[in-house]
Amino acid sequence: MARVYNFSAGPAALPEEVLLQAQSEMLDWHGSGMSVMEMSHRGKEFMSIAAEAEADLRELMGVPSNYKVLFLQGGASSQFAMIPMNLIGRTGKADYFRTGSWSKKAISEAKRFGEVKVTVNSEVEGKFTSVPAAGGFELSADAAYVHYTPNETIEGVEFGYIPDTGDIPLVADLSSTILSRPLDVSRFGLIYAGAQKNIGPAGLTLVIVRDDLIGTPLDGTPTMFNYATHAENESMYNTPPTYGWYLAGLVFKWLKGKGGLAGMAEINQRKATLLYDAIDNSAFYANPVDKACRSWMNVPFTLADAALDESFLKGASAAGLKTLKGHRSVGGMRASIYNPMPEAGVKALVDYMAEFERTHG
Amino acid sequence: MARVYNFSAGPAALPEEVLLQAQSEMLDWHGSGMSVMEMSHRGKEFMSIAAEAEADLRELMGVPSNYKVLFLQGGASSQFAMIPMNLIGRTGKADYFRTGSWSKKAISEAKRFGEVKVTVNSEVEGKFTSVPAAGGFELSADAAYVHYTPNETIEGVEFGYIPDTGDIPLVADLSSTILSRPLDVSRFGLIYAGAQKNIGPAGLTLVIVRDDLIGTPLDGTPTMFNYATHAENESMYNTPPTYGWYLAGLVFKWLKGKGGLAGMAEINQRKATLLYDAIDNSAFYANPVDKACRSWMNVPFTLADAALDESFLKGASAAGLKTLKGHRSVGGMRASIYNPMPEAGVKALVDYMAEFERTHG
Repeated sequence: MARVYNFSAGPAALPEEVLLQAQSEMLDWHGSGMSVMEMSHRGKEFMSIAAEAEADLRELMGVPSNYKVLFLQGGASSQFAMIPMNLIGRTGKADYFRTGSWSKKAISEAKRFGEVKVTVNSEVEGKFTSVPAAGGFELSADAAYVHYTPNETIEGVEFGYIPDTGDIPLVADLSSTILSRPLDVSRFGLIYAGAQKNIGPAGLTLVIVRDDLIGTPLDGTPTMFNYATHAENESMYNTPPTYGWYLAGLVFKWLKGKGGLAGMAEINQRKATLLYDAIDNSAFYANPVDKACRSWMNVPFTLADAALDESFLKGASAAGLKTLKGHRSVGGMRASIYNPMPEAGVKALVDYMAEFERTHG
Repeated sequence: MARVYNFSAGPAALPEEVLLQAQSEMLDWHGSGMSVMEMSHRGKEFMSIAAEAEADLRELMGVPSNYKVLFLQGGASSQFAMIPMNLIGRTGKADYFRTGSWSKKAISEAKRFGEVKVTVNSEVEGKFTSVPAAGGFELSADAAYVHYTPNETIEGVEFGYIPDTGDIPLVADLSSTILSRPLDVSRFGLIYAGAQKNIGPAGLTLVIVRDDLIGTPLDGTPTMFNYATHAENESMYNTPPTYGWYLAGLVFKWLKGKGGLAGMAEINQRKATLLYDAIDNSAFYANPVDKACRSWMNVPFTLADAALDESFLKGASAAGLKTLKGHRSVGGMRASIYNPMPEAGVKALVDYMAEFERTHG
């Protein structure tokens, strides 16, 4: 077996240590005689797995006690509706930052449930390559909340700061950047993330929500789309995605072994610096994003000649560097270098890029 | 490692062969160098896994070509809302059969989206132990659909027939009985099932829906709750629960190896007969359900003296017979004997029951 370096934007690579542990426990978790995926979610074995995963996440992120941590299904796309359905009722209005493909989707869905004001729009000539400077925007006084996307997975654009929204709850789609570095959770009203990038397998969605924002859904909100349903039942109103929850717990333990989010941040910064430097120090490769707004997690880049794209991808694949093709809306390449991507993987990519430039540049 | 016989109602036991295959492929699926859970859902590897699973399911169940098969998230509890949100619009009314705990939940949620008429109510003195005879009910001429629960997981009550609803689309929650025997899909407008009993791990929900019922959701239906969203995107509007989809595919292959649903039905009937005979041939054990309405999948039973319940469970656990405690609303014991439960497991349970009766009766 030869493991590859997988640069997929999501579902994405998982730590090999986590996969090895899951493999060893597949038929018998801790002498229980069953797989975690065969366990009743209400049995003491799974309850302990679930509780430990939540405790580890709370420790890693420093989640304050007045926030609920919910382990849900449906992905960020479901949150695009759940957020306005649960939060917009107070005033019927919300502010959204439009900084890339995913925030556009969030805006589109939110409009179905209330009045959405696009307070920030960083699109220039059809492209998203920056975010506004801190304070470079004006909020609506009557917004029930402000929504933004700290890291745009497709464009590779990231906020280097947390917007100050005063008393207005700040809501963030952290799908592609959660757990990549320390974060002050108390600055947010609600954080959400699909698991399939930095947390675990697809099918698990994490929501961290301040208590006071739970319990006032719009009329017609399905029971399963009401945060109160899940908060009151510790994410076990119905059967949760148990195996994903378990794997997330293994990832949290792995992160603790890496020195937590501060330790992970150092590694991630080194990985991103290595890759961006390789791009910037070459006339053959280019990244279009403002340097202050470059993502640590998703690095899109183009070749000097797009006619070489197929050749680049073919050679990369042969070298064990997979899933580097850029999103169709941006073109070129995209290397997603989430937590599980080892520094050796980024090094191998940079080496391949140099060799490709030497032979094709 | 000693595997146990796990009688959990769900999440439930999976075929050992399936777990072994998943284990062997955990770090490297078919030479791809990655786990299935690390694959982009839009890559050719996962697309082939997804397509093969659907094709196998269509073959196993004989799904007609004018039905879509959707691989969703959210469990049956999400379907309780999605069904009225997508189907009730035509007349604003629907008929529901009330035959146990899960149909009660479906009714409660549907009432939030339209006028629900309980056409059948089999509750007698707080208990559900039967279903009406075929034809023993009158439907509303203006019902947009009729909903029923062919197998009530908690009470162990099952319909021995498919209700004839004429031109009114029939909707069925098959969570705990799907794939247990052949079924004429063309008799239904929509079938749904949480995966965690007979299909695969929790977090995957299967919906099989006739084309003409897709595309007329109520106003305010979230995009993710609109069947059209998923039908038009082959269940890849957003990231699907890829690992559950893969495991379901392995289960479908396993079922084909068992002679398909006809082969499985023979095995399941033998298992159910063995257990019900053991109960009926004893004055120590009892099952309250009308014989014509007994579930093949979920077998609740009581001991002559409830004071012995703890002792029974303790001894069972020591004998490797797990998760036999009945649902709190029914009490006593419940043995869920889904497809993956081997006949040897039911034989072991029956032997233990006889021995316990001999020593405690």
